[in-house]
Amino acid sequence: MEDYEVTVPLQSLQALGCHVDAVSPKKKAGDICPTAVHDFEGDQTYSEKPGHNFILTASYEGLDASSYDALVIPGGRAPEYLALDETVIALVKEFMQSRKPVASICHGQQILAAAGVLKGRKCTAYPTVKLNVVLGGATWLEPDPIDRCYTDENLVTGAAWPGHPEFVSQLMALLGIQVSF
Amino acid sequence: MEDYEVTVPLQSLQALGCHVDAVSPKKKAGDICPTAVHDFEGDQTYSEKPGHNFILTASYEGLDASSYDALVIPGGRAPEYLALDETVIALVKEFMQSRKPVASICHGQQILAAAGVLKGRKCTAYPTVKLNVVLGGATWLEPDPIDRCYTDENLVTGAAWPGHPEFVSQLMALLGIQVSF
Repeated sequence: MEDYEVTVPLQSLQALGCHVDAVSPKKKAGDICPTAVHDFEGDQTYSEKPGHNFILTASYEGLDASSYDALVIPGGRAPEYLALDETVIALVKEFMQSRKPVASICHGQQILAAAGVLKGRKCTAYPTVKLNVVLGGATWLEPDPIDRCYTDENLVTGAAWPGHPEFVSQLMALLGIQVSF
Repeated sequence: MEDYEVTVPLQSLQALGCHVDAVSPKKKAGDICPTAVHDFEGDQTYSEKPGHNFILTASYEGLDASSYDALVIPGGRAPEYLALDETVIALVKEFMQSRKPVASICHGQQILAAAGVLKGRKCTAYPTVKLNVVLGGATWLEPDPIDRCYTDENLVTGAAWPGHPEFVSQLMALLGIQVSF
């Protein structure tokens, strides 16, 4: 998964006082997931460098999805692989069918497409993921500028990590988190 | 600077609706600063890998510090160098003398020590920066566990990026930002 895309939403929500668990199939609390730094360095698509080693906070096996208020799906190259995991698909379906907030960024929408939950929905994604999204039955919303995110009912989608401020803010709104100065 | 330590506070605060500018001496809006991924991979001190290229949002020259409510100093290896820059020292002194919130993490406290603003203050830092902090006249607060941060009047300090949730939360408190669910 992309380094910023897993840690910025996690730590942003934790700073607000939310309890957030990070999980991955076949892994348990304390296990490490390597991350990737995806960046835009003048080439025709993103570059990749090794990122931080991300430490999972909870175990995947036995996870009780009904005890969580929302699901966040980071991007990177992991979603292409995770989209093949039937337990991930079942988890996504459960959140979408219960209409709980689901926030997915970048390549995370490959998992939504694989789960068949995009039919009739409006969403964006990393531009090269448009094919998955459209074949999955969604109406494509152009991420223009690239940091623009969209909310469609319970679903927040963004194109890449520059969109985190809108991404987290729109998820906060769905969760009913209000900020005052 | 450390990759997480510049982007997590920036995007977390932006998600709350704050206007945040990122600057660096001799650089202007749109310029790139390379970042470093500092991680804890079982060696006796942290490892370093190249991170995202961070794009500055504002120009350093002509910056009006009085128009900002707070200062955030990320860690990494940049502070060792920036602590030699007289304009950076002056900027830090201005924020500390005005008692505006200053949040500094990891090696960022090297700049505070160089600015002479730690005398009589209580703070933490990355453990190997303890020498700078103590020689700078501060009382050392042990970051135990490593994600623990401390607030001493207008000053928030933390040891490293695992502390971001507390770091951002304590800065929010100093800024009078309240969250309700």
